Amino acid sequence: MTAIRVSLHQNGSIRQGDVALIDAWRADSEDKLWVDIQQPEREILEPLLEERFGFHELAAEDSLSLNTLPKYDAFPNYDFFIFRAVDVNLHVHGAQTYKLAAFLGRNFLFTVHREAMAAIDNICNRLPQDARLLMNGPDFLLYSIVDQMVDAHFPLLERIEEFVDDLQEQIFKDAHASQLDEVLHLKRDINILRRQSLPQRELLNQISRGDAQFIQKQHLIYFRDVYDHMFRISETIDVERDMMSGTMEAYLSAVANRTNEIMKVLTIFSAIMLPLTLIAGVYGMNFANEPELHWHFGYWYALGLMAVTAIFMLFWFRRRGWIGHRDAPPRPRI
Amino acid sequence: MTAIRVSLHQNGSIRQGDVALIDAWRADSEDKLWVDIQQPEREILEPLLEERFGFHELAAEDSLSLNTLPKYDAFPNYDFFIFRAVDVNLHVHGAQTYKLAAFLGRNFLFTVHREAMAAIDNICNRLPQDARLLMNGPDFLLYSIVDQMVDAHFPLLERIEEFVDDLQEQIFKDAHASQLDEVLHLKRDINILRRQSLPQRELLNQISRGDAQFIQKQHLIYFRDVYDHMFRISETIDVERDMMSGTMEAYLSAVANRTNEIMKVLTIFSAIMLPLTLIAGVYGMNFANEPELHWHFGYWYALGLMAVTAIFMLFWFRRRGWIGHRDAPPRPRI
Amino acid sequence: MTAIRVSLHQNGSIRQGDVALIDAWRADSEDKLWVDIQQPEREILEPLLEERFGFHELAAEDSLSLNTLPKYDAFPNYDFFIFRAVDVNLHVHGAQTYKLAAFLGRNFLFTVHREAMAAIDNICNRLPQDARLLMNGPDFLLYSIVDQMVDAHFPLLERIEEFVDDLQEQIFKDAHASQLDEVLHLKRDINILRRQSLPQRELLNQISRGDAQFIQKQHLIYFRDVYDHMFRISETIDVERDMMSGTMEAYLSAVANRTNEIMKVLTIFSAIMLPLTLIAGVYGMNFANEPELHWHFGYWYALGLMAVTAIFMLFWFRRRGWIGHRDAPPRPRI
Amino acid sequence: MTAIRVSLHQNGSIRQGDVALIDAWRADSEDKLWVDIQQPEREILEPLLEERFGFHELAAEDSLSLNTLPKYDAFPNYDFFIFRAVDVNLHVHGAQTYKLAAFLGRNFLFTVHREAMAAIDNICNRLPQDARLLMNGPDFLLYSIVDQMVDAHFPLLERIEEFVDDLQEQIFKDAHASQLDEVLHLKRDINILRRQSLPQRELLNQISRGDAQFIQKQHLIYFRDVYDHMFRISETIDVERDMMSGTMEAYLSAVANRTNEIMKVLTIFSAIMLPLTLIAGVYGMNFANEPELHWHFGYWYALGLMAVTAIFMLFWFRRRGWIGHRDAPPRPRI
Amino acid sequence: MTAIRVSLHQNGSIRQGDVALIDAWRADSEDKLWVDIQQPEREILEPLLEERFGFHELAAEDSLSLNTLPKYDAFPNYDFFIFRAVDVNLHVHGAQTYKLAAFLGRNFLFTVHREAMAAIDNICNRLPQDARLLMNGPDFLLYSIVDQMVDAHFPLLERIEEFVDDLQEQIFKDAHASQLDEVLHLKRDINILRRQSLPQRELLNQISRGDAQFIQKQHLIYFRDVYDHMFRISETIDVERDMMSGTMEAYLSAVANRTNEIMKVLTIFSAIMLPLTLIAGVYGMNFANEPELHWHFGYWYALGLMAVTAIFMLFWFRRRGWIGHRDAPPRPRI
Repeated sequence: MTAIRVSLHQNGSIRQGDVALIDAWRADSEDKLWVDIQQPEREILEPLLEERFGFHELAAEDSLSLNTLPKYDAFPNYDFFIFRAVDVNLHVHGAQTYKLAAFLGRNFLFTVHREAMAAIDNICNRLPQDARLLMNGPDFLLYSIVDQMVDAHFPLLERIEEFVDDLQEQIFKDAHASQLDEVLHLKRDINILRRQSLPQRELLNQISRGDAQFIQKQHLIYFRDVYDHMFRISETIDVERDMMSGTMEAYLSAVANRTNEIMKVLTIFSAIMLPLTLIAGVYGMNFANEPELHWHFGYWYALGLMAVTAIFMLFWFRRRGWIGHRDAPPRPRI
Repeated sequence: MTAIRVSLHQNGSIRQGDVALIDAWRADSEDKLWVDIQQPEREILEPLLEERFGFHELAAEDSLSLNTLPKYDAFPNYDFFIFRAVDVNLHVHGAQTYKLAAFLGRNFLFTVHREAMAAIDNICNRLPQDARLLMNGPDFLLYSIVDQMVDAHFPLLERIEEFVDDLQEQIFKDAHASQLDEVLHLKRDINILRRQSLPQRELLNQISRGDAQFIQKQHLIYFRDVYDHMFRISETIDVERDMMSGTMEAYLSAVANRTNEIMKVLTIFSAIMLPLTLIAGVYGMNFANEPELHWHFGYWYALGLMAVTAIFMLFWFRRRGWIGHRDAPPRPRI
Repeated sequence: MTAIRVSLHQNGSIRQGDVALIDAWRADSEDKLWVDIQQPEREILEPLLEERFGFHELAAEDSLSLNTLPKYDAFPNYDFFIFRAVDVNLHVHGAQTYKLAAFLGRNFLFTVHREAMAAIDNICNRLPQDARLLMNGPDFLLYSIVDQMVDAHFPLLERIEEFVDDLQEQIFKDAHASQLDEVLHLKRDINILRRQSLPQRELLNQISRGDAQFIQKQHLIYFRDVYDHMFRISETIDVERDMMSGTMEAYLSAVANRTNEIMKVLTIFSAIMLPLTLIAGVYGMNFANEPELHWHFGYWYALGLMAVTAIFMLFWFRRRGWIGHRDAPPRPRI
Repeated sequence: MTAIRVSLHQNGSIRQGDVALIDAWRADSEDKLWVDIQQPEREILEPLLEERFGFHELAAEDSLSLNTLPKYDAFPNYDFFIFRAVDVNLHVHGAQTYKLAAFLGRNFLFTVHREAMAAIDNICNRLPQDARLLMNGPDFLLYSIVDQMVDAHFPLLERIEEFVDDLQEQIFKDAHASQLDEVLHLKRDINILRRQSLPQRELLNQISRGDAQFIQKQHLIYFRDVYDHMFRISETIDVERDMMSGTMEAYLSAVANRTNEIMKVLTIFSAIMLPLTLIAGVYGMNFANEPELHWHFGYWYALGLMAVTAIFMLFWFRRRGWIGHRDAPPRPRI
Repeated sequence: MTAIRVSLHQNGSIRQGDVALIDAWRADSEDKLWVDIQQPEREILEPLLEERFGFHELAAEDSLSLNTLPKYDAFPNYDFFIFRAVDVNLHVHGAQTYKLAAFLGRNFLFTVHREAMAAIDNICNRLPQDARLLMNGPDFLLYSIVDQMVDAHFPLLERIEEFVDDLQEQIFKDAHASQLDEVLHLKRDINILRRQSLPQRELLNQISRGDAQFIQKQHLIYFRDVYDHMFRISETIDVERDMMSGTMEAYLSAVANRTNEIMKVLTIFSAIMLPLTLIAGVYGMNFANEPELHWHFGYWYALGLMAVTAIFMLFWFRRRGWIGHRDAPPRPRI
């Protein structure tokens, strides 16, 4: 069900309440209004946004739809933004990203989102203690929210990095088909993350250059700071993308190595057995005149011949470096 | 056969009819005219477009030809556009994309297309009930058509995505040469889609920036919205392109894995048979003095020796992890 | 030997002749002159171009040299262009592309080319019947030539596409080393085509934007049309480039598949032979006390044991799906 | 513990000391001040930077945080820069890069960094002998520091290049799994280096274009020179990145070659043994009437037949080029 | 040792000499001076360039250092350029490229280079016969030098192309590990060439646009021509880069093919031997009652059975296309 939280900065103090509190705010005053709408429903939102506040139907539509990418649209009396946040508890593959739509005017901010968002809850709870957040203007409030949303990428990216490191290590120890599955899924997650972070980075760049009309000049430097973080995030995503390619190569190489190792050992084994079988075959021939067959120790001689042959071949294979745990050659250090 | 549907907004009401209705429209009035031409034939189109309405021969030519890419040309009294739509029932590989040519003037819109298009039929049927579509001007009508054409990409892309997911899953279970064929075809479909969506995106960007002369300022935001959708579409196409590479890698890896698995099992099998054959060979030798041959239970001893050897080797192979259904090692979760 | 064809539009009619006809033309008149020079030789060209018409030595040099890429240079009294055409009868690998140099002034056009070019011959022959080509100005004549040159790419690209389709199909049926050779050569052809078409596209874009001084405003739309065709050509070349990568992957995969198939069948065959050989070995042992050897039907029993073993193994392999013509699993259709 | 070194150029001479020396400097004088802060602690830095000198809280924050990328921010009374330096003693994989934050005003420079930096120490020690460094203005001092930081990339890149050369040579001699590990790590190091050098290059480009307000016109050429060096560095990094791909390919190819070599030798060995075993089997058959068995030299004849077969096969394999140390074919030299 | 050659155009004639000739030139005259310095030494160059002619210390430094990339710096009284030339006798892998630094003023040109350069020597020798080179101004002289330097790329690129063609052909005939080494080195050479040619191309583009202050308007077209050549060179380098990838793929595919070919032949050989050995084993069994053993022609029957089996298998393998020199299937020609 749609949940609406209203915060109002009036005469130097903060009041929080439900949708009824909006009536206490006047559009032409210096009072600052923040309306946060969670789980928006069309029947409730349309009368409020389009009819009462006169937001454009397309912007209202975008704040309801699911997949819109980060963007900025300027309207005569307000700026409209779409941002995207990530869920730091990303434990299922897929696009665990959330959308935040924001309508920013001279003295009001509307935020619309489907899921509960940590950044919003956090700011909402801090507001009564820290009136400065809203007193500085709704654009500073928007900065505070977006800043937290953007910074939430860092723990996620660190966990992906650790996970990839673990995966690579594991692959080097023991490659397994399920890892390939994991790699392909992770690659896709990172690609989706990347394609969402690029327009968000561009959007923040645009804002920090001063394109948005209701963001005050003295707050641009704050959005510039968020942009720098977002830039670093998209760089990290690119590094992780390169790491995934490396992991893929490592996997394929490890699988090939292991299978080849098995084939090699078994082929060597066969190659040792064959001459022994030949010796047995030679002394199983039925020639009337085959001297060894009549030697007293002929049988032991044949067994000895087999042993000598086997030992000689083992020795030769080891010398060529095909069997035995060869130590890695000493490597130059960088 | 060429089918011409004419809609006319005159004195606040909509009239629909065939080509004769054009005579009721005057170029210098505020009446709005929409002429939709399906399956255009040169003999019918040229007199109508070039002679009667004075459209440029090259534009008329482009509206007839097959493969033109999305573009915009400005002429003194009208704008000329080419858009491309996709067939949502794409069930055969190949470029199932349609072309829509549009001539947009101050108070008229001509749309020319070869195949029946759902977006056009839809709007044409809604028009009598919803006069607003044409009353707002022919540019708003064009927006309504293009909006539906662009949004028709989404179900197609979703079906491709589901199909690729199915394909990947199937490949992991049982790789088959026909899947490679499928992957190569799908890759090409996506590439063609991509190369058509990029100029369309660029075209919509151009329009939403206000480059087209007969699109009214207050409708730019609608085209901007269509552009955002087209942007998302081309991003999704890129994600799917990356997925196809992943599928290709998965296929190649699965084929290699399966063949290696077969080779491994059979090689192991051979490696177990060889020592047994050697034992049989040893006791098939014809030495005069070979004690075991005269033991009472010699034959059973030999068979036992074979059994022990086979069991020992199976045990050793299992211990090295070369046979048996090894459980996947526990994997860290992200 | 240098062949010079001169066409002159004077007083509303066309006259064609050899180099002597140039004398009938006056630079300050409204007469329009077209001089086409085939197989240019330095000794003939330099006096004509540099001395008589005062073209810059570098432009004259470029019209003689072999490999120049498409470009545009502005000179005070004329525009200098280099275009490239393709030979539609491309039957030998390699850069079968031709160069056309053009000097375009207010009322004259010089075209210089080494080989006979279909587009030039065609226009030259149509000229007496269709005086409009030259009457509209030498820039319209240039458009007519370039239009034909550009459109000649389409049949070539279609043939390449068909050829690649054939090649892919053939590869899926029966991969062969000569196909790899073909793929590598074709890849190079397409790369060369691509690198020539990109500057040509850029050149046509430049012209259609109105950069060239002697192309009349009302003819820009025609060059814009040629540019659109060139754009589509370079898009098609990119699609074909992607197809080549797919073909390469298909080839490598097909070769690997086929060799693996051979290895698999033969390995299975060996695996069936080995236990039979073991059975023969067991009953070839010389133990004094080996009961089966004295059974009346012992020999038939041994042969029967072999048959049973072979049938069992065949059955087991078939059940694991390693032999037999498995039908492809039913695939989901997109 | 935070270490603060202060240098002051006053009345033509240099004085160096600790934080107390700052009191001797007046903001509106022509005295030049350099404050270097190592291992910054928040409790010490905030009063100094934010309260006493009025630097913006975000800039102060950036000078403390760990991972910021190179950037430039303009503030009313000072320029704020972030640079990154590399550790020339890079002996452990990972991002051994350091951050330098700089506040540059009309007559002061603050440098903040966590680790000891060779470039800073160097300049600090040269300062008493070479007053010109500070006398020319704090921007020239900044140039001197950044110049040394950038040039420190060159020995690092040379060592990486040598290391990669060694690695490639070693791989060609004897491929080993640990080398793959090395390659993957090095690839990642180079990628991180690359992603840090690109914004640094862009930053230096920006500075050398004259964007920074407190860098004097006559010193721009010096920063242009640093930019040229940085450009060359990022080019070298790209070359090394290409080298890494080549190394990867060399590794995979070497591993495949070696395993194939082993398989080949052993398969050849088996192929020679098999006919010999067949001969032994033939003369081990128990036919009542098998003439060779009764020849006087039958046994020797059989052994001879084996020897001849083995020699013939060796000879045939050698002629087909499958065994023996074939010399490389003579190669054309470029 | 530093070699200085001075050429002076005075009163319509050319004088050549050593460093002393500079004294005959006055900076404010119309006399034109060219000073060429080979193997520059710091002690000689600094007094001449920095003190006597007042060139900036950084430019003088750049003209001495080794690895600078092509660039252009504007100074009040002169332009400073760095160009790079290639050694047409590139017979050792590695960056055989030379640097040319040039100081160009209104009536003087200084060229500084380490190695002897064919282009410089050539121009220097032609100068007495062809005074026009210097009379047209020092910028025309610079053009003459750079033109020759750039054109020297063509024979080099042709030789690389031929070499790659040879290499590919050889690889198809007989792949060898040394070829991989060659491919990797050549790839690196081409990459270095590419990274040097891109800034040179950009530099020439900049010059031909008229950015350099001491290049006269009427000579821009000459530099534009050099730019066109450089453009073609970098396009050719890109084509060769693509060819190298193709060669790499051809190599890997050829190695895989050859090894697979060996494995296949030997596996087939083994598969033929095994049933024969089984037959021998069957008639080597010691059953009391084994009828064939007592047939008169039993032995010959057994040998015949072996021959028939072998022939049948050979026939079957051939029919499946696994042995025999299959002709390539007829291929469609493009």
